[in-house]
Amino acid sequence: MEVLLTGFEPFDGQRTNPSWDAANAVRPSGYDLTTLRLPCVFDESLRVLEDALTTRRYDVVVSVGQAGGRPHITPERVAVNLNDARIPDNAGNQPVDTRVVPDAPTAYFSTLPVKACTAALTAAGIPAAVSHTAGTFVCNHVFYGLMHLAATKHPHLKAGFVHVPYTPDQTTTAPSLPLVTTAQALDLIIRTTLTTPQDLHTPTSGTLH
Amino acid sequence: MEVLLTGFEPFDGQRTNPSWDAANAVRPSGYDLTTLRLPCVFDESLRVLEDALTTRRYDVVVSVGQAGGRPHITPERVAVNLNDARIPDNAGNQPVDTRVVPDAPTAYFSTLPVKACTAALTAAGIPAAVSHTAGTFVCNHVFYGLMHLAATKHPHLKAGFVHVPYTPDQTTTAPSLPLVTTAQALDLIIRTTLTTPQDLHTPTSGTLH
Amino acid sequence: MEVLLTGFEPFDGQRTNPSWDAANAVRPSGYDLTTLRLPCVFDESLRVLEDALTTRRYDVVVSVGQAGGRPHITPERVAVNLNDARIPDNAGNQPVDTRVVPDAPTAYFSTLPVKACTAALTAAGIPAAVSHTAGTFVCNHVFYGLMHLAATKHPHLKAGFVHVPYTPDQTTTAPSLPLVTTAQALDLIIRTTLTTPQDLHTPTSGTLH
Amino acid sequence: MEVLLTGFEPFDGQRTNPSWDAANAVRPSGYDLTTLRLPCVFDESLRVLEDALTTRRYDVVVSVGQAGGRPHITPERVAVNLNDARIPDNAGNQPVDTRVVPDAPTAYFSTLPVKACTAALTAAGIPAAVSHTAGTFVCNHVFYGLMHLAATKHPHLKAGFVHVPYTPDQTTTAPSLPLVTTAQALDLIIRTTLTTPQDLHTPTSGTLH
Repeated sequence: MEVLLTGFEPFDGQRTNPSWDAANAVRPSGYDLTTLRLPCVFDESLRVLEDALTTRRYDVVVSVGQAGGRPHITPERVAVNLNDARIPDNAGNQPVDTRVVPDAPTAYFSTLPVKACTAALTAAGIPAAVSHTAGTFVCNHVFYGLMHLAATKHPHLKAGFVHVPYTPDQTTTAPSLPLVTTAQALDLIIRTTLTTPQDLHTPTSGTLH
Repeated sequence: MEVLLTGFEPFDGQRTNPSWDAANAVRPSGYDLTTLRLPCVFDESLRVLEDALTTRRYDVVVSVGQAGGRPHITPERVAVNLNDARIPDNAGNQPVDTRVVPDAPTAYFSTLPVKACTAALTAAGIPAAVSHTAGTFVCNHVFYGLMHLAATKHPHLKAGFVHVPYTPDQTTTAPSLPLVTTAQALDLIIRTTLTTPQDLHTPTSGTLH
Repeated sequence: MEVLLTGFEPFDGQRTNPSWDAANAVRPSGYDLTTLRLPCVFDESLRVLEDALTTRRYDVVVSVGQAGGRPHITPERVAVNLNDARIPDNAGNQPVDTRVVPDAPTAYFSTLPVKACTAALTAAGIPAAVSHTAGTFVCNHVFYGLMHLAATKHPHLKAGFVHVPYTPDQTTTAPSLPLVTTAQALDLIIRTTLTTPQDLHTPTSGTLH
Repeated sequence: MEVLLTGFEPFDGQRTNPSWDAANAVRPSGYDLTTLRLPCVFDESLRVLEDALTTRRYDVVVSVGQAGGRPHITPERVAVNLNDARIPDNAGNQPVDTRVVPDAPTAYFSTLPVKACTAALTAAGIPAAVSHTAGTFVCNHVFYGLMHLAATKHPHLKAGFVHVPYTPDQTTTAPSLPLVTTAQALDLIIRTTLTTPQDLHTPTSGTLH
């Protein structure tokens, strides 16, 4: 099986981005892995991703981004058709209240088995939770664009997005995880996706509103 | 102008629900206010809400729910077509991975001016932030159902959802706000909605992903 | 009864400090209130405080500081004989692992009725919790210095320290409280102190270790 | 070198306690390790610890406890002479506002090199921070009692306390760490203690008050 795993370059003045460092540290077992480093730039990130999907046929695409402050590995469930950048991206763009794709649906669900992945991570002793918001910056932008590409051009694809915590060198106060833990998590998410034809329908966990 | 403000009955073993207590404490100035207490029950909550919208023509509907653990008043921006209950509701229902409305869009955006409301709250010294997830329990269920009703049957309506923190009597460890602050916030959200024909397009604040 | 209430000037690049703004906003009822703005500077802050205690006989001294990120009003219970500054103070000093007062006890307990104060705040609908660490920056420095002065020179004094959250204008992500709420809290702490000869001995609440 | 590493039995209805599970999983390299499981009971825990210190001469004692909700491995710096139990311990005792040791100092500092340990953990990619409060339950009780024993009867001893996060099986919402990470952390703390004659005097990191 052919798997594409993307991470991001550093942004917001950080020197590293655990999404790329962890993606790069994955040692695949039982699948062919291609890793791709995306620019943290609106639109350009999606062009790079679309090119990759055009040049090779992948079975699974997992895009990964940093969610500074979260304590868990969080497979994202919902991509929203909204760009709303609190800070400029790495090219200086700061779209506010625009659509990722005009005249496209308001949202897409991930087609990764997010509950099976979360259960597998927890069973492996790795902190994990399903998330229902990927924010409105470049991460959600790539997630939405990926799901739109899958829905419109690559219907066979299983695709989704995973947010990962800081590494300990990035913060002295916020939660973080060892890079090796995050890399293990990404491998486990890929393997669970490859072996789970249908997601679990166990009740979601996490904060209740 | 006719305004409907809904709150929820207590749930999950709590004796109070600040969403209803605060809605009930609002003293309206310059608009006609109807308050409505919704059962914390899937489907039944939406039947009660739909009845209210049928019997009277409202200009604005603000539904309010408790988000235990959040420190801010959070106008919600995105309602998702998903029921996924971590615990049973007050009637013992626990839908998992079902749609709020079958064959309807994956998500709706709030039509309240969520950024103008948040700015008005902050200017008034009240902690506030736009949220991009209302969860997957009865709060999101009512929010989605309300937005679907507005989109399909009441297109003139401005409608949306606001999550509010615990009150201090509900928790000794989690963040909370005085009930009087939450009630002031709801009044300010209504007044801002009535006087804001078009939402602000300032960059969103809050956590960045 | 004569009460001294101190707050701090802004620090760490902030334009305001809610400890001083709230102290300044207290409207005393039933006691004589003197407010004093302390520099956010090691040693100098204690000289200013000691001068104030020399020129007038106070019955109660409550020092107040900002605890950015905390959601509660937190009466502090323990002052530690340790300076360990993560950043320079407003005069550029950054003491590391030094004593506030050489050859003095490792710690002092507050002589304010911290549990009665917390109970009164909660009963008034204000988020509150007893804290067991005031950190190791200028806040703890003033707290320890105050308790040492009380223990060695003003044994009749009831004295202690209260940390207060950010105001909403200072942060878009961290918890905060309206300034009016914090000012009410300080008045209530003073009145509870004046009317409580002996602190409550109810079990502490909050995080358990 | 002889090292004693203690963990606690489960408490508060939990089925596991990561302090003991991690202590038990440490594979010592270059030192002799004795592990000891303490009851989560006031006074009895200290009797068991004192017995262990009497029967063998240790060079280093590290006591470990669970701090549910913390995201970091936190070497504790200050033990306070205070018992104040929010819930009953495992024998049903709930001391409120009593002393661990009557007529003893208000507090002791850890004699572990807490800053060197935290720096070593961070350098190894493990989330870590110095803490200035071990709470007022059995953890602080054991920490204070240990430091008092060291001060009065075992002056050669390097001793201290480390709080560790939940493991992922204990919580779906709070931060947690893999057990293997926590076990690595404890080994690294021991090795750093054995090779660090004098603690670092770098500025502390973490929350600033």
